[in-house]
Amino acid sequence: METLEKPVLDKKKAVKPLKKIMIIQSKATIDSVYAALILANGARMEGIESELFCTFFGLEMLQPKKMDHLHVATVGNPGLHIPTMLGGLPGIESLASNMMKKEMDKLDIPPLSEFLEIYKASGGKVFACKLAMEMFHLNREDLWEGVDEVLTVGDFYGRAQEEGVQLLFV
Amino acid sequence: METLEKPVLDKKKAVKPLKKIMIIQSKATIDSVYAALILANGARMEGIESELFCTFFGLEMLQPKKMDHLHVATVGNPGLHIPTMLGGLPGIESLASNMMKKEMDKLDIPPLSEFLEIYKASGGKVFACKLAMEMFHLNREDLWEGVDEVLTVGDFYGRAQEEGVQLLFV
Amino acid sequence: METLEKPVLDKKKAVKPLKKIMIIQSKATIDSVYAALILANGARMEGIESELFCTFFGLEMLQPKKMDHLHVATVGNPGLHIPTMLGGLPGIESLASNMMKKEMDKLDIPPLSEFLEIYKASGGKVFACKLAMEMFHLNREDLWEGVDEVLTVGDFYGRAQEEGVQLLFV
Repeated sequence: METLEKPVLDKKKAVKPLKKIMIIQSKATIDSVYAALILANGARMEGIESELFCTFFGLEMLQPKKMDHLHVATVGNPGLHIPTMLGGLPGIESLASNMMKKEMDKLDIPPLSEFLEIYKASGGKVFACKLAMEMFHLNREDLWEGVDEVLTVGDFYGRAQEEGVQLLFV
Repeated sequence: METLEKPVLDKKKAVKPLKKIMIIQSKATIDSVYAALILANGARMEGIESELFCTFFGLEMLQPKKMDHLHVATVGNPGLHIPTMLGGLPGIESLASNMMKKEMDKLDIPPLSEFLEIYKASGGKVFACKLAMEMFHLNREDLWEGVDEVLTVGDFYGRAQEEGVQLLFV
Repeated sequence: METLEKPVLDKKKAVKPLKKIMIIQSKATIDSVYAALILANGARMEGIESELFCTFFGLEMLQPKKMDHLHVATVGNPGLHIPTMLGGLPGIESLASNMMKKEMDKLDIPPLSEFLEIYKASGGKVFACKLAMEMFHLNREDLWEGVDEVLTVGDFYGRAQEEGVQLLFV
C-alpha cells in the first residue's frame, strides 16, 4: 500500500548509520600517521564526513618543517623484525623509514604533505589540539595552513554531539 | 492496554544497543594482539558480533609462520620496568615475551594460533587489509586459512554501516 | 501548532547523542595515561558520563607506588627527536619524563594522583581489568582506593549496552 508516509520512511532508511568519523591522532610515527590518514581519507571516499584531531606527538604531522621527515619506530616495534640493538644504531631508523616510504610510493600512497592536501580537497577536516600546542610551545603559524581550527577537548566533544559518529584513537 | 503494536515494541527494546564491535588491529606486539583478541572474543562471549580487521603490522598475527613468535616490546615500553639499555640486549626481548606467554598460559589464555581458532569457532570474523598486504608484499596464501576476506578500507566502512556498531583502533 | 506531543519531542531533542565515553587504557607511558585522562576528564567537564577501564600496562596508573613515576618512552618514539642510541642511555628517559611533567605543570595539568582525584570528584568512574590483574599478580589492595570496581571484559561490554556510548582504545 502506498501512503504518504512511505517516501518519508524510505528517506529515513537512506540516511547512513555511519555519517562521520572523528580520528584522534596522538602519535608521530609514520605508521600511525598514515593509518590515521588512510582511515580519514577512506571515509571521504565513501561519502562519510571525516575529521582528524591531532594531539600530543600527532601535532608533528601538521608542522611543515617536520611532516615529510617522520620516522618509523625501529625499536619498540617487533613488527619490523630488526634486532633491537641494531634498531638503535644511527641511520637504521632513517633506512627503515625510507624503505617504508618507497613501498608506499609504489602503491601510489602520496607523501604526507600531498596526502593532506588530497584529504582536504575531498572535504576532510583537520584540527589541532589547543592543550598539546601549549605543551609543545606551538603557535598557529607553526602549523600547516590547511589546519581548519585549533580546538579544545570540549570543542572536540561538541563536534561529536551528532547521531552516526564514530570516534577512533590512533 | 495490549495492542498489536505492543509485541513489536517489546521486540525492538530487546535489540541491544551494542550489536557489533569492529576492531582495527594495527600492531605486532603480543600485548596489542592479545588485547585485540581478548576484546574481540569477549564480545562473542556476550553475544555481540565481532570483526577483526588486521592492517599494517597487525598482519603479523595472521601469518602462520609468525603468529606464535610475536614479541613484547622491551624498549619503548616503560610498563615492563626493564632499563632501556638492558631492554636492547639480545635475548631480553625473547625472555620478556616468554614470561608474558607463561603468565597467559597460567590464566588459560591460549597461544595465538589456538586463540584465533576459538574466536573463529565462536562466530568471530577476521579480515586482512588489502592495502597493507600490498605494502608488505603478502598474498592470500601467506595468511592463515581462517581469514574470511581481504577488504579495502571502503569495504570495511561498508560493514560499519549498521546501527549499534562500535569501532576500536588497537 | 502546539500539541501534546510537542514538549515530548523537544525533550527528546535535548538528549545528547553522546552520553557516555568509555576509554580502555592499555599503556603505561605518561603520554598515553595523560591522553586518556584528559579525554576522560574533558568529557565530565562537558557533562558527558566518563568511564576509564585500565588493562594490561594501563594498570600502572592505578598503582599508588607507580602512578607518579610513569615514564615517557624515549626510544620507539620518534616524536621526541632524541636519537635512538641516546634515548637508551640511563637517565635520558627520566630526563625526558621530567621535562614533560614540567611542561604539564606549567599548563596546570596536575600530577597523575591529583588528576585522578579531580576526575573522580567530577563523577568519573575508574575500573580495573580482572584478567590483567591476574596476569600481573595484582590484588585489589595494590590498587588506588579510588578504583570503583574490578571488571571482566564481559562486565565492560555490559556497561556499553546503552544508546549514546563511544568506546576508545588508548
